[in-house]
Amino acid sequence: MTTRSISILGATGSIGASTLDLIRREPGKWRVVALTANCQAAELARLAREFSAEVAVVADESCLPELREALAGSRIAAAGGAGALVEAAARPADITIAAIVGCAGLAPTMAAIEQGGTVALANKEALVSAGDVMIEAVRRHGTTLLPVDSEHNAIFQCLAGNDPAHVRSITLTASGGPFRDWSAEQLAAATPAQAIRHPNWDMGAKISVDSATMFNKGLELIEAHHLFPVGLDKLRIVVHPQSVVHSMVEYRDGSTLAQLGPSDMRVPIASCLAWPARMDTPCDPLDLAALGELTFRAPDEQRFPATRLCRQAAEAGGAAPAVLNAANEVAVAAFLAGQIPFSRIAVMVEATMTRYTPPAPTSLAEVFGVDTEARAHARELLELA
Amino acid sequence: MTTRSISILGATGSIGASTLDLIRREPGKWRVVALTANCQAAELARLAREFSAEVAVVADESCLPELREALAGSRIAAAGGAGALVEAAARPADITIAAIVGCAGLAPTMAAIEQGGTVALANKEALVSAGDVMIEAVRRHGTTLLPVDSEHNAIFQCLAGNDPAHVRSITLTASGGPFRDWSAEQLAAATPAQAIRHPNWDMGAKISVDSATMFNKGLELIEAHHLFPVGLDKLRIVVHPQSVVHSMVEYRDGSTLAQLGPSDMRVPIASCLAWPARMDTPCDPLDLAALGELTFRAPDEQRFPATRLCRQAAEAGGAAPAVLNAANEVAVAAFLAGQIPFSRIAVMVEATMTRYTPPAPTSLAEVFGVDTEARAHARELLELA
Repeated sequence: MTTRSISILGATGSIGASTLDLIRREPGKWRVVALTANCQAAELARLAREFSAEVAVVADESCLPELREALAGSRIAAAGGAGALVEAAARPADITIAAIVGCAGLAPTMAAIEQGGTVALANKEALVSAGDVMIEAVRRHGTTLLPVDSEHNAIFQCLAGNDPAHVRSITLTASGGPFRDWSAEQLAAATPAQAIRHPNWDMGAKISVDSATMFNKGLELIEAHHLFPVGLDKLRIVVHPQSVVHSMVEYRDGSTLAQLGPSDMRVPIASCLAWPARMDTPCDPLDLAALGELTFRAPDEQRFPATRLCRQAAEAGGAAPAVLNAANEVAVAAFLAGQIPFSRIAVMVEATMTRYTPPAPTSLAEVFGVDTEARAHARELLELA
Repeated sequence: MTTRSISILGATGSIGASTLDLIRREPGKWRVVALTANCQAAELARLAREFSAEVAVVADESCLPELREALAGSRIAAAGGAGALVEAAARPADITIAAIVGCAGLAPTMAAIEQGGTVALANKEALVSAGDVMIEAVRRHGTTLLPVDSEHNAIFQCLAGNDPAHVRSITLTASGGPFRDWSAEQLAAATPAQAIRHPNWDMGAKISVDSATMFNKGLELIEAHHLFPVGLDKLRIVVHPQSVVHSMVEYRDGSTLAQLGPSDMRVPIASCLAWPARMDTPCDPLDLAALGELTFRAPDEQRFPATRLCRQAAEAGGAAPAVLNAANEVAVAAFLAGQIPFSRIAVMVEATMTRYTPPAPTSLAEVFGVDTEARAHARELLELA
């Protein structure tokens, strides 16, 4: 058995946990280089010891003393802070799982891309806010980029062995979120508690609200546009409440290939870990007879304008997706804090995009600048409201 | 544009017509070598002239004078009879569409396989009755065999780029036929007229009855066993009345790839013609939102014992599938002639399989022998009944 080296950026999050669960099942197959966390020092130290990692890093430097103490007596190096995070990501590894949430994940993800191994990407901002910069780095360094997101991983699988030139369309499936059957009036009165109850996936509050507004699907559309450059006019969305079909690719001959599976992130992660081969997961076999039916409907962009706004941002290109993403984060936080009603999230995002139209960022530093400025604009709009 | 040469065995049937419809849309791309028919001389001559075929062959020698007359003045060679059919199939062609129905298609299909080009297989008997012999010839001659049947073509597409060793299961979808919701009592009284009304595909009487008994799906199981040797225990059947999902492959990581498309044979034929690339077809894009729902249920082997019998025949191997196929043909003819009730078809097949257990055929001649003997046994059972 060939040993492969792996780094996990964001080891204590849900993607990290799923990844470690999979490699735990293949003893002797994996050599762990770096494990990182934000500030969960005790948990990170426990994992680093279990997997004999070379280095464990906390992004928040104030947590470094706790990490040092927890790793005392081991041969595992402990480090802390943004610089240490980038250094750890730059260590050679056959595959890096880039699963740090938010803009904090951008610099280490870029370091992993520049390092030259395969990068399995689970950080949304990398493609939404910094798509052009990241894809250019991937191209320059000859990095293999594998998508971890279940939808994009499905598309990646459906494209295997096919020439993208033969693609007629790519369809992202969307659960439609907890409000898919709500009227505009009901949506206007939706509460944070209602928004964070997602029907199929167990997720955090921010992403649950994104699922309810369908900004989540819109952001995935922007990601798909970077990962699979077949043209925005060929990218579709269909609402599929059961979340069994994860996405589809239709070819010019009328063949549609779809990837189906359980709502378990270990499936797409395993697909990345073993690619181009396959590895076992403990997921139950798909039983369509037990499921009985799969349903589909067109998305309603009147009630859920998010996908329309994301498509506009992708079409505009440049800084627009980063502005949209920053404005959405501010708006979602305001909604969760009870400051604005649910239906105002999209309105605020659109207003920020209209108000702030900076030139296209050409570096990560410029992406951060756009992100910061866009948040300031969004907050101003909040105060005006 | 590279020109490719093609022969179509069974040019006047529905697979032949669909193939010609596709190559007609790519003028200058295809050079037609041989076109064959059973006895439709006028139609064959018209097609041979339109596509400037090298040779046109009628299997029934008594139709040769009519063919000669219809081709008079052209540079197209006319021929007739079983030997001429094999000779035509043996002419070098980049791809041969083997679409002659029944045991009559075996020898020319074998000739096409031995010729060494790609063979797109639409003749069921080739794999059901002569599977071992055909697959051995494919192996020996290094022939690329592409399945035309929509289910097997779907599986082939879902396997692209993947190692069969990673397959957890292969699931053939079945419409369930016109009687899928009928009780055992209703089935016992089913008439030929009711049996030949297929819900999704426009087919001939024999294959429509096979769809109603589910022998069609069972025969496809036997074919799949030869085409995709992952083990019979990994081959499944699921009833899917809408016939949109044509078949599926599940991998060890829990990913299931499915191929979806319209009920139009031009899709799988185009997939064979262009493989490993893709070509345009005039089929409408898949619109799942318009379809609304796809449903699935487990097959009921109490009411429809055919799939169980076919699985038994595949497990037994050797001559058993040829015996089953021959007995089924006799039984279906007897049902269509009003001689036996619908529910007796499977009973007769099982009885023939019990009664006649010859050694495994090792040549086409021996396959024909088994087929003839099995028919005689089945007819005797008919008279006993």
